[in-house]
Amino acid sequence: MLIIGESLNATRKSVHDAVIAQDVEFLQKLAVDQVNAGAMMLDVNAAVPNRKEEEDLPWMVEKVQEVVDVPLAIDSNNPDAIIAALAVHKGRPMINSISGEEEKLEKLLPIVTETDCDVILLCMDDKGIPSTIEGKVQIAGKVIELLLTKGKKIENVYVDPLIGTVATQTDAGVLAIETIKAIKKEFPGVHTAAGVSNISYGMPARKLLNRIFLSLCISNGLDGCIVDSRDQELMSSIWATMGLSGQDRFRSYMRAYKKGLLKG
Amino acid sequence: MLIIGESLNATRKSVHDAVIAQDVEFLQKLAVDQVNAGAMMLDVNAAVPNRKEEEDLPWMVEKVQEVVDVPLAIDSNNPDAIIAALAVHKGRPMINSISGEEEKLEKLLPIVTETDCDVILLCMDDKGIPSTIEGKVQIAGKVIELLLTKGKKIENVYVDPLIGTVATQTDAGVLAIETIKAIKKEFPGVHTAAGVSNISYGMPARKLLNRIFLSLCISNGLDGCIVDSRDQELMSSIWATMGLSGQDRFRSYMRAYKKGLLKG
Repeated sequence: MLIIGESLNATRKSVHDAVIAQDVEFLQKLAVDQVNAGAMMLDVNAAVPNRKEEEDLPWMVEKVQEVVDVPLAIDSNNPDAIIAALAVHKGRPMINSISGEEEKLEKLLPIVTETDCDVILLCMDDKGIPSTIEGKVQIAGKVIELLLTKGKKIENVYVDPLIGTVATQTDAGVLAIETIKAIKKEFPGVHTAAGVSNISYGMPARKLLNRIFLSLCISNGLDGCIVDSRDQELMSSIWATMGLSGQDRFRSYMRAYKKGLLKG
Repeated sequence: MLIIGESLNATRKSVHDAVIAQDVEFLQKLAVDQVNAGAMMLDVNAAVPNRKEEEDLPWMVEKVQEVVDVPLAIDSNNPDAIIAALAVHKGRPMINSISGEEEKLEKLLPIVTETDCDVILLCMDDKGIPSTIEGKVQIAGKVIELLLTKGKKIENVYVDPLIGTVATQTDAGVLAIETIKAIKKEFPGVHTAAGVSNISYGMPARKLLNRIFLSLCISNGLDGCIVDSRDQELMSSIWATMGLSGQDRFRSYMRAYKKGLLKG
């Protein structure tokens, strides 16, 4: 189970402001806190309107890797920013993300296939996010084929099913889990990854729903998640689920217990 | 999802003492608290050594049903106590439990099949609890056949897989879930039910493990659980899981939210 810390993201106000202020201390503390809480990789997104992302993103990568020794998920829609960030990244990065969107795919395909990296593949294309499992599997299949043709290994691809919202679609939870299972069945060896907070948008007790939903996803084959690793209850649920679904003989759970990280 | 409150059980010190003291107020409060917290049925066990269970159990049934209008799960190893309790029970009871144990089965089979009731069937026999899924399924199959032959309906049987302990058997969680799935596949129409606290015995953060484990069981087909319904976090997890796994369109979850019962 790959746990990716989501918090270094400039769509969040505090990170947005820290990028503008070039507040290294704030960003480094956020990096250290996430890793100390159990993140195994950190997502970094430095996209601030009217600034040069191709300068901010590599800057953020360098500053973050000064204080933590985990790999980063380079999160951007800007291929030039990704290239610049990859150039300074230490270790084996992840690229977040590619999809079936033609223009983005055309630009990113050479970068993704020529770099020794993992990549997140979003199940969407220029028509948007398909409403059916079949539609999502179809997009994933098309992009996976392109990646494999250019020499990428299937196990380096993390397919994100793009989880819906139960408030507007009651069966979004079931649909997401079935999509995860379908993707893993259709493309043997591929990984899956997802953010989970979308599922609970507009519902009461969102953290509860997120936690339980993530547990159900993990027990059904989800390999990676992009979460706020500082949420101790969420992390404790992840470690408990890994043990209970036979993934690691409760090693993560007991390690977290010894570190005082278990909350429940 | 049938949520059975577990707390009116004389193996617990406070209930044991209340039976001896004939403390009606204590037992009635415990009944009301469990139902207010979301229990849909209450387990009642009045077995206190050196007392007449065939008097205490019907007494407890009567006193409990004075204050709550849910059916009870008559929990006893004593067939005479069960008969006496059934005689005073209002509504459609559950009998907890029968198993493959020959002597118990012989005595309880006529009662179970001649009463309009649900029954919990424990996957064990005179040799104890089988360690394999196949062994458990075999015992369930033998008893189910006897029940059906005598006119019981399959949907009135709740098979309890008898959940193990991860501290001594790391894969007890996976095994339990696979057993639930195997039982439902092997005996179409049958229900499953289980207590969950055994899973976490000897582990840190037991309530966390219990909660997550129950969620995984529910999403894999568990139909009933015997739990402390006063545990708001556990109940909130159950309602969230029911919604997320497509069982009730979040009706229980939203009802609990409106009643102020959601915790998460």
